[in-house]
Amino acid sequence: MLLCDIGNTSYHFLDAEKDYKKDVKSFDASTINDNVYYISVNSEVNAVLKTLKNWIDISDFIDKSKYYETMGIDRIVAVEALQNAIIIDAGSAITVDIVNNGDFKGGFIYPGVDAMRKTYKNISPALDYSFNFDLDLDIMPKNSQDAISYGFLKTLYSEVMSHELPVVLTGGNAKELQKIFKNAFFDEKLIFDGMKQIIKKAKLC
Amino acid sequence: MLLCDIGNTSYHFLDAEKDYKKDVKSFDASTINDNVYYISVNSEVNAVLKTLKNWIDISDFIDKSKYYETMGIDRIVAVEALQNAIIIDAGSAITVDIVNNGDFKGGFIYPGVDAMRKTYKNISPALDYSFNFDLDLDIMPKNSQDAISYGFLKTLYSEVMSHELPVVLTGGNAKELQKIFKNAFFDEKLIFDGMKQIIKKAKLC
Repeated sequence: MLLCDIGNTSYHFLDAEKDYKKDVKSFDASTINDNVYYISVNSEVNAVLKTLKNWIDISDFIDKSKYYETMGIDRIVAVEALQNAIIIDAGSAITVDIVNNGDFKGGFIYPGVDAMRKTYKNISPALDYSFNFDLDLDIMPKNSQDAISYGFLKTLYSEVMSHELPVVLTGGNAKELQKIFKNAFFDEKLIFDGMKQIIKKAKLC
Repeated sequence: MLLCDIGNTSYHFLDAEKDYKKDVKSFDASTINDNVYYISVNSEVNAVLKTLKNWIDISDFIDKSKYYETMGIDRIVAVEALQNAIIIDAGSAITVDIVNNGDFKGGFIYPGVDAMRKTYKNISPALDYSFNFDLDLDIMPKNSQDAISYGFLKTLYSEVMSHELPVVLTGGNAKELQKIFKNAFFDEKLIFDGMKQIIKKAKLC
């Protein structure tokens, strides 16, 4: 079974246990002949895939009444994968969603690592630093690099931990965030797990 | 006594109880004949003011050993004004500093309201909303505007409140943030208060 999670920049495939990415700008979806079960937050790609019979949009098989209208399908699928958790999906945005006994309780959106780095740089060239993910969160910073790292990371950490739920990390920057969320579960394939559950429930294959 | 706090975009004057602003791009500092006691984070303006005898840089009269080298003079002066507080100065950046029994304990830097708004917009046009400062911080959001508002504001709130110190708000966006930090002290003239204390201590006038 071939799965695909499509974002703003890439097609992320899972073929059995092997995952790989293709650039949305250059990849031609019609070159694939097998059935592909996909979700996509990319409206341009969506328009193309609707014309290809072997690309099956599994978002049609989710009970979306539990969610809100403009909520990204990737967030919904991650929530569908778990019963009790606070889920951090760290990509171009960092989405944080709470699921309690299988019910979606709401969530928030925080800027991703690259976006936030640019933000500080644009405020002032004096804030043009990479983030220090080895920061000690218990010490108030006394240098510029730690001052922005703490501003970006500790604020997120304080809010997430206040919910006292198991933290699950996924997404492209999950490994970096794991240095901050030391006790978090790291699940690279959370979205694919959610997709598999939806496919199974809908008896698609 | 004429005081002036110079930022990246404006000269902020205090003449007795009256304050007013002048654009850094168009204002000619040499048109003032009275003595002006100033601080400045603007290196271009600094270079000009060093040539004007009646502009007195009061940063020379602060014991800077308590602070760190790249820390903005505006943050230092705000800390000098207070004994026990967590100080939020909301401008192009939001700086958060802790002072305990008059000692600087460190601080962090968070993006300002305008910078953060741009950040979300640049991540995705779907996140191009103004912030909802009337957000209920106790409810996890279920719509996009609240999801980014919570991401920006509640994370900052959770971190600031965890320090269990009196919160003092100042800076251009302080009034907006007061909707979130409901029990904060609002002190528009905190920087000027700090400047006056430094001038008094140094017996400058």
